Amino acid sequence: MKIVCQKADLQKSVTIVMKAVPSKTTMPILECILIDASSNEIKFTANDMELGIETVVTGTILEKGQIALDAKLFSEIIRKLPDNEVVISSDNRYNTLITCEKAKFNIMGKDGEDFSYLPFIERENSITISQFTLKEIIRQTIFSIAANDTNKIMTGELFEISGSTLKVTSLDGHRISIRKIELKDGYSDKKVIVPGKTLTEISKILSGELDDLVDIYFTENHILFEFDQTLVVSRLIEGNYFRVDQMLSNDYDTKITVNKRYLLDCIDRATLFVKEGDKRPIIMNISDDVMELKISSQIGSMDEIIDVALEGKDIRIGFNPRFLIDALRVIDDEQVDIYFMNPKAPCFIRNQEETYIYLILPVNFIG
Amino acid sequence: MKIVCQKADLQKSVTIVMKAVPSKTTMPILECILIDASSNEIKFTANDMELGIETVVTGTILEKGQIALDAKLFSEIIRKLPDNEVVISSDNRYNTLITCEKAKFNIMGKDGEDFSYLPFIERENSITISQFTLKEIIRQTIFSIAANDTNKIMTGELFEISGSTLKVTSLDGHRISIRKIELKDGYSDKKVIVPGKTLTEISKILSGELDDLVDIYFTENHILFEFDQTLVVSRLIEGNYFRVDQMLSNDYDTKITVNKRYLLDCIDRATLFVKEGDKRPIIMNISDDVMELKISSQIGSMDEIIDVALEGKDIRIGFNPRFLIDALRVIDDEQVDIYFMNPKAPCFIRNQEETYIYLILPVNFIG
Repeated sequence: MKIVCQKADLQKSVTIVMKAVPSKTTMPILECILIDASSNEIKFTANDMELGIETVVTGTILEKGQIALDAKLFSEIIRKLPDNEVVISSDNRYNTLITCEKAKFNIMGKDGEDFSYLPFIERENSITISQFTLKEIIRQTIFSIAANDTNKIMTGELFEISGSTLKVTSLDGHRISIRKIELKDGYSDKKVIVPGKTLTEISKILSGELDDLVDIYFTENHILFEFDQTLVVSRLIEGNYFRVDQMLSNDYDTKITVNKRYLLDCIDRATLFVKEGDKRPIIMNISDDVMELKISSQIGSMDEIIDVALEGKDIRIGFNPRFLIDALRVIDDEQVDIYFMNPKAPCFIRNQEETYIYLILPVNFIG
Repeated sequence: MKIVCQKADLQKSVTIVMKAVPSKTTMPILECILIDASSNEIKFTANDMELGIETVVTGTILEKGQIALDAKLFSEIIRKLPDNEVVISSDNRYNTLITCEKAKFNIMGKDGEDFSYLPFIERENSITISQFTLKEIIRQTIFSIAANDTNKIMTGELFEISGSTLKVTSLDGHRISIRKIELKDGYSDKKVIVPGKTLTEISKILSGELDDLVDIYFTENHILFEFDQTLVVSRLIEGNYFRVDQMLSNDYDTKITVNKRYLLDCIDRATLFVKEGDKRPIIMNISDDVMELKISSQIGSMDEIIDVALEGKDIRIGFNPRFLIDALRVIDDEQVDIYFMNPKAPCFIRNQEETYIYLILPVNFIG
């Protein structure tokens, strides 16, 4: 195999596929990037068996073939090369020579045949959205998936299409995040659970531009994202997602409207008194158009008063400040509405149109 | 005690004194910042018993007094406050209240009397240089002090004043770095060993501006840096420094002149094949106005050719690539001269005026 590419093109493509290289694995071949120049285009592929990424690299094939190269070493070599034309060639014993200007690197590759190809995905059942939107909805929900595997389903997000609406849901047992967006077209109903890791990695690759589109294909066991010159294939999480609708409610006894930035800054200050792993709540005391926020621990205490527009009853309720911060941080509105029922029931942060709903369970407290 | 300051002023001063707060200590009082408003100005002090920093804070004293506050907590509170006027008050039981707009923090302080004051330094025997210059000479020598304490003297830098010359030297057994600068005035001879940590921390506080000056005072056991509204006092390292002059030589059999950027980038690429703790050398093969650089390890090999201007004999010599990188990175010249004697003798990277001299020992290699 022999190919010629610009360093910048190589670097761009390597950065993309690196997102699917596992940090540790028992199968050394998975630590490689496959350079496939056996057809008419150059493709890089990485695959950790759950998430696979393939991207087309701009360049010229001088001699067809393929080679698997250690991903970390290859990406570091590319990164440190001068900004010029790079030649990558390998012989039939997998000796690989990378040259750029007067620099020559010799490294040992592996047989490309040993590499696990991406599963073949039937290209039907797709939806199209902008890269900007996909990146946004991931950012606005990904924080409330569960971190560990004790309940596999909680480590993913529910992607639900019904008609022309895409609804994305995540939950971790203490809170639920929901984002709804309107699609340009109507589609047949779909309901899949996408691994959180897949979403985290793909949002690092997405351009985030409104004008760039991404096609999403669904099959029984896989989801495929296709955009620019890149394919991202991920396994889906099997099982039935939680029935979130029955946990939601539009009833409330108290509603406040508050400046998001003030509230966020205030809660952020309160976290000074909460050490890692500490479950100390922040207490909200709402009455007479003011909210008093209060937190105290062995280290000290803080209280602060914020103006709110109050509708309904007074309330005194406690929350994990982290959960409030996570939700408030991803809301782009200047003012937010928060709905309460009673000190034992969840609060809801949502807008009128319900394009976002954040449910947060309260924390019991004494005093 | 009761003082009023702007948040920005507090933050600036806290950031400065934090550099002398030890990360771990058996004396809890050292983890504090002393707020001293007992005279006519507000001063913050931190002191880890080796390095002490005192800085004057802009603000108003409403009630004289002093209090010691946990440095980490206090700095985090200040950082998270709104950008406005901050009132800090403490009662005689050390309860401390920090208020800003509608936010109120209650924390427990400690008796300021328990705090270790900075040693008193007689203000004679001083030199004056620009903050820019001090920051530069630290950056250009600090990398070759020894990291661990097995030889205490190697963890510091020699500051040597003779006439109107300041010479700063560091060494770690494999290399020596020397920077010489001309002072505006002549001074009496001085020779002290300043702890590396002191220099690292002070260079983080220095403005780096050519027009800002710093006065440096020397005593038997201490060095004092005075600049802006800040005092930095450090113990000196006791003992006699190595006799570096007898390790230097101006003889050479080979001299090359090379583009610094090319050489640095090339050696940087070579480090890809050197893992942490590996002592694999980079081999320089110099002849006929070209230098071939070569490195090989189990992972692979690299070679690259660089044009040089050669004067004298051909040579083939090996170095720890890290040491070459460290020296080349801090040299601002576009072209550098490197002098060699033979493959067993150190090389010297130095300019004509010898304002910088970097001595690096070669590494033996086979083949």
